[in-house]
Amino acid sequence: MNNFIYETPTKVYFGKDEELKVGKLVAEFKPKKVLIHYGGKSAKESGLLDRVKKCLLYENISFVELGGVVANPELKLVREGIKLCIDEGVDFVLAVGGGSVIDSAKDIANGAANPDMDVWDFSLRKCEPVKTLNKGAILTLSAAGSEMSNSCVITNTETGEKRGYGSSLNRMNFAIENPELTYTVNAYQTACGAVDIAMHTIERYFCPGEDTYLTDAIAEAVIKSVMKAGKDCIANPTDYAARANMMWASSIAHNGLTQCGREIQLVVHQFEHEVSGMYPKVAHGAGLAALWCSWARYVYDANINRWLQYAKNVWNLDIDFEHPQKTIEQAIDKQEQYYASIGMPTNLKVLGVKKEDLEKLALGCSRNNSRTLIGYKPLDYEDILKIYEMAYE
Amino acid sequence: MNNFIYETPTKVYFGKDEELKVGKLVAEFKPKKVLIHYGGKSAKESGLLDRVKKCLLYENISFVELGGVVANPELKLVREGIKLCIDEGVDFVLAVGGGSVIDSAKDIANGAANPDMDVWDFSLRKCEPVKTLNKGAILTLSAAGSEMSNSCVITNTETGEKRGYGSSLNRMNFAIENPELTYTVNAYQTACGAVDIAMHTIERYFCPGEDTYLTDAIAEAVIKSVMKAGKDCIANPTDYAARANMMWASSIAHNGLTQCGREIQLVVHQFEHEVSGMYPKVAHGAGLAALWCSWARYVYDANINRWLQYAKNVWNLDIDFEHPQKTIEQAIDKQEQYYASIGMPTNLKVLGVKKEDLEKLALGCSRNNSRTLIGYKPLDYEDILKIYEMAYE
Repeated sequence: MNNFIYETPTKVYFGKDEELKVGKLVAEFKPKKVLIHYGGKSAKESGLLDRVKKCLLYENISFVELGGVVANPELKLVREGIKLCIDEGVDFVLAVGGGSVIDSAKDIANGAANPDMDVWDFSLRKCEPVKTLNKGAILTLSAAGSEMSNSCVITNTETGEKRGYGSSLNRMNFAIENPELTYTVNAYQTACGAVDIAMHTIERYFCPGEDTYLTDAIAEAVIKSVMKAGKDCIANPTDYAARANMMWASSIAHNGLTQCGREIQLVVHQFEHEVSGMYPKVAHGAGLAALWCSWARYVYDANINRWLQYAKNVWNLDIDFEHPQKTIEQAIDKQEQYYASIGMPTNLKVLGVKKEDLEKLALGCSRNNSRTLIGYKPLDYEDILKIYEMAYE
Repeated sequence: MNNFIYETPTKVYFGKDEELKVGKLVAEFKPKKVLIHYGGKSAKESGLLDRVKKCLLYENISFVELGGVVANPELKLVREGIKLCIDEGVDFVLAVGGGSVIDSAKDIANGAANPDMDVWDFSLRKCEPVKTLNKGAILTLSAAGSEMSNSCVITNTETGEKRGYGSSLNRMNFAIENPELTYTVNAYQTACGAVDIAMHTIERYFCPGEDTYLTDAIAEAVIKSVMKAGKDCIANPTDYAARANMMWASSIAHNGLTQCGREIQLVVHQFEHEVSGMYPKVAHGAGLAALWCSWARYVYDANINRWLQYAKNVWNLDIDFEHPQKTIEQAIDKQEQYYASIGMPTNLKVLGVKKEDLEKLALGCSRNNSRTLIGYKPLDYEDILKIYEMAYE
């Protein structure tokens, strides 16, 4: 087991009506002014935004608003948010939305608190924020896990780059998670969320590391639970138990718990960020589903035992010790079938990716052939290109 | 799933040599003076205490010391520690030891920060601390989970009462967990630790709650992992993987993760606190092992399905649907056999408990017949007495 640091300072208020606490929770930070940051019309139409504002007004907290965050949140809106915060003296950012809104809020809080640095440099890992603003989230989508994570992923539409960075400063001070707020998430987005959550866990599970059987067992618990929850949410969008388990899985999968003792890089996420960076209409979860099985088939022979553990503990398969590859391929097939069963793509072509872009994707993912992705089988440019090609159709 | 608040602010530094960071970690709090709090000779003889002091001196941090914490930490030493902190202007408490030392440190930090309140009143839940001192822990025993928990259990030897209280202020700012520091823990204490960790999880698992399948699966992961780790630690005390998984399980089992969405009371712990409160030589884990199976046999019929889930998912038993009780009793037998296999008692008599004290224990546990313990089968004085009697031999 590798040494690790475990840090999950975000205080989670989970359950029905918890968003009504937002005024009091924000008031604890004695903010001068709050930025309410949100996405499109759903937060408005559902009445959630109005309820949030009422809660703040009740506590005499003044605020400004910035909506318009899109899936794959964009640098240009982040810059607008930073300017707004500085001009208005905002010292608390409240995200009302899913992972895109929360990531955008994190980047705004970091940018506004470090006006001498360029916020895109954080994403390029040229420098790190040294301060941030206080921030909280009201979660409306179970997927990215940004509500408890230390990561922040932003897209620069000018360059087509989608880049993530980790920082302790990216942790929300609090997250409010009311599963009922996700009742209106449609089947496709729900499925994308289930994939994202599963993949946060599965990708960590296949990162290098030994003797982490507690972490492994927790990861297996999360993977199986989110697959059940995802399916149940799609079958019945107002199934509270399913929405609740899925929402909590979203936070657990990406807060650090499922990586303790392992060396971490979310490899398939790296592949996917190139895809949705270049094709912003591709939903992140769909991109992951389209890529994962090809990645899995390409890498599994580098650690047969690890993949057999997955086959046995996640898919309950009997191991064929004479032909362990068969068992593993069966498990990968099952994961692929699961993704298909919830309406997710299992190749890139159906997502509209063009064959002639695969090399460009591989160059982006390998940072122009300058980095190798970690794993039991490390992946350089050639490997990455092969996997994109395998995933194409 | 019930609403819940999840709060785990303790930053954990886990792995080999992590204790060498203690100077820097304490220095971040800019303390005027530190109290180093510890137990008996082992921290001294192992050289750990010297290393800790060197790390503090290197950062020019001045400190005072207070050793002498015993298993079932005592109020009188807490009072001594509070006086020392106030007299010396201590504003940071560093616990070097296991759960007893950490609990004692928590109570000292709360007492010293609230000099107008009587510290024992916190345990009696007559009042709550409103402030605390900053505090950290270097863990040397995998058991109580106090390093990440919000709980604090203190024994008043004058009255024979052992009482716990929960508070956000009881959370350590940081915990350093180096599994190698537990290599010298003997087989009996290791077994006691494994029981305590398992029981923190199992007791939460059988608290009332529905639709918490993610929490359940995580709990099952912890239970199975700690049982394996405990056995492996006893077989080979310097098995790093086993010590590491056990140490991490200790923190996970009691930091709140395994209770999310469920109504919580650690019922068997309530039974046990009476026993080791009256018989201070009884190790907490041993007391839990002696009590659990009788409690289990007494209560399981109140929720057959829950116990079948435990039988299936923890013990991998095939369910006998015609005679589900048989499957459940088989599972309880297996848990009992596990405890016996690691050298734990499965009744109170072998622990030296006297038969004539059972009524007194039941009166204590029911607070003189004034409280009912929660659970699928709530337990009043009569029930509690019956369970003590069943557990007697």
